Amino acid sequence: MPKKSSSGAPRARIEDIAQRVGVSKGAVSFALNGKPGVSEATRQRVLAVAEELDWGPNSAARALSGAGTSVIGLVIARPAKTLGIEPFFAELTSGIQAALSERGFAVQMQIVENLEAEIEIYRRWWREHRVDGVILVDRRDVDPRIEVINSLGMPAVMVGGPGAPGEIPTAWADDWEAMTSIVDYLAALGHRRIAHVGGVPEFLHSKRRTEALDAARQRLGLDELLSVVTDFSDQQGASATRRLLAAAQRPTAIIFDNDVMALAGLSVAMEMNISVPAELSVVSFDDSLLTSLTHPAITALSRDTFDFGHRVARLLFESLQEPMPAGAARNLQLPTPVLQVRASTGAVPR
Amino acid sequence: MPKKSSSGAPRARIEDIAQRVGVSKGAVSFALNGKPGVSEATRQRVLAVAEELDWGPNSAARALSGAGTSVIGLVIARPAKTLGIEPFFAELTSGIQAALSERGFAVQMQIVENLEAEIEIYRRWWREHRVDGVILVDRRDVDPRIEVINSLGMPAVMVGGPGAPGEIPTAWADDWEAMTSIVDYLAALGHRRIAHVGGVPEFLHSKRRTEALDAARQRLGLDELLSVVTDFSDQQGASATRRLLAAAQRPTAIIFDNDVMALAGLSVAMEMNISVPAELSVVSFDDSLLTSLTHPAITALSRDTFDFGHRVARLLFESLQEPMPAGAARNLQLPTPVLQVRASTGAVPR
Repeated sequence: MPKKSSSGAPRARIEDIAQRVGVSKGAVSFALNGKPGVSEATRQRVLAVAEELDWGPNSAARALSGAGTSVIGLVIARPAKTLGIEPFFAELTSGIQAALSERGFAVQMQIVENLEAEIEIYRRWWREHRVDGVILVDRRDVDPRIEVINSLGMPAVMVGGPGAPGEIPTAWADDWEAMTSIVDYLAALGHRRIAHVGGVPEFLHSKRRTEALDAARQRLGLDELLSVVTDFSDQQGASATRRLLAAAQRPTAIIFDNDVMALAGLSVAMEMNISVPAELSVVSFDDSLLTSLTHPAITALSRDTFDFGHRVARLLFESLQEPMPAGAARNLQLPTPVLQVRASTGAVPR
Repeated sequence: MPKKSSSGAPRARIEDIAQRVGVSKGAVSFALNGKPGVSEATRQRVLAVAEELDWGPNSAARALSGAGTSVIGLVIARPAKTLGIEPFFAELTSGIQAALSERGFAVQMQIVENLEAEIEIYRRWWREHRVDGVILVDRRDVDPRIEVINSLGMPAVMVGGPGAPGEIPTAWADDWEAMTSIVDYLAALGHRRIAHVGGVPEFLHSKRRTEALDAARQRLGLDELLSVVTDFSDQQGASATRRLLAAAQRPTAIIFDNDVMALAGLSVAMEMNISVPAELSVVSFDDSLLTSLTHPAITALSRDTFDFGHRVARLLFESLQEPMPAGAARNLQLPTPVLQVRASTGAVPR
């Protein structure tokens, strides 16, 4: 008897078909696999009963035979709560899912505490044949996942880069150029005290943004200010803004690493009775409904994040079809986000 | 030789261990499964090589033996693009994922075109042993999924209800009571022309809200107005608002079925130079950063959506551990969302 997982009908197994038709399990297997060894009448009988019982070759048997799973893995080492409120992440994953569903693939997601747990999951999913490949996000400056993925020989795409030859395929946009475009614009408006509410410094994109900001400040002769480190949450964005605006010499412009923090920062400015943009300019690194529909609307770097996710998934399909030659690089550089100027930025107060 | 999926090391199989140790596949299997038939020295040798090769019993073999997959399925029949921008959905799924990850479970998600495709996926995932159970969302007024899930005997939880005895377990909040609380509040402020920008009418929660609104209008003697049907997107929310506000007799208050549409509606009011709340009150059925950080902030029904998702997943775990007796009901009623009054609502204009 097959295992009963719940009330209701159990999943049909070869044994059930054999019993119903009155032949051996071997005969059922021959019939289902189109092999000789059973009469045509028996084969028809077996196929009819299999259909009646809604039997299908299970993923277990298919995986053992080396067939694909039609599942792509995505492991995220961030607090679940912050994922729910970040539009960038929701749009990226919905773009990924749209591309996967076009080919009948599912995405298998798991949230973990840290990078070690993330790597352990890749090992397990791969050896247990649970996924055909994985999409890695939040690239680290020094990223131990790359070596693990390469040693497993697991098809993968890394979001964030650029990647070096011999690494796994990478989809990325130029955060350096994007940050530079913001600073140049603010400097042209006369701002010299430009603060930055950044993200997790271990993430490569956070590091590149901070470095680009420092380089632009030096080049333009702006004041040196520290970048404030956060976890990308609205709470930490708000408290960072309060700290910056409570300082003796407060900044005249703040660049926020995402839209959730920019919105929280805008709200803090209102609460502290600091007028935006008359006394403070606000810029967000991510664009979304959050930035475009507030009052004042927030100047932000704009890109099509849904399309970004779609391309990431397509890059992975390329790798599934055609493994990358050893020592080669497969880098997909996406368009640099473009500054969408709205009402939250203006000339420096005199 | 095991199949090579990509450049790099292939996944280890029993054959590889057997070859390396110089024993039969049967002997390796005995050693790995702790069965008699091999010497202790061979067993130690096999275990060492298995660890070295990063070998693990694959999900295929475990599924064939009847063990669980530690994967929960979630199929969504909505356009991928709308999922990326709806905070409710992102927060619900992140709550679900948080609860799953506490037990080492992953979620397998797939986006499909329609209900028929959704049902086909349940059948396939179940017969292929891909998931231990599923979470169903967007309950329909007449929902064919319930019978399919019951006939498969697949553990499941339905979001939305209440459910009837003999159905699958259900997690729900009272949309009727929630809508009634909004209408009562607006009527107390003197509003008589209250419009409604609703969602997909096939969804049970949309239908219950519209019915509750009609009942409250009758009870309170308010004007009869049609509910506008949308797909929950900001675009349709905006165009519905334009239509309502361009009418000869425009409403003095609009209730939006989610925050994305309420925000779009607020923006349309600004664009049409209609002052909120002096000339128009705006209420959102969902609360999020979107509603609390805009200017004016939007009055909304507030609940802990992340916690809702967490409880849904826990209810499914209960069902995995203890199937529901035939004819019984397992209904989890969650607290009715509470009206959070902000600056977007006020007394009716005279």
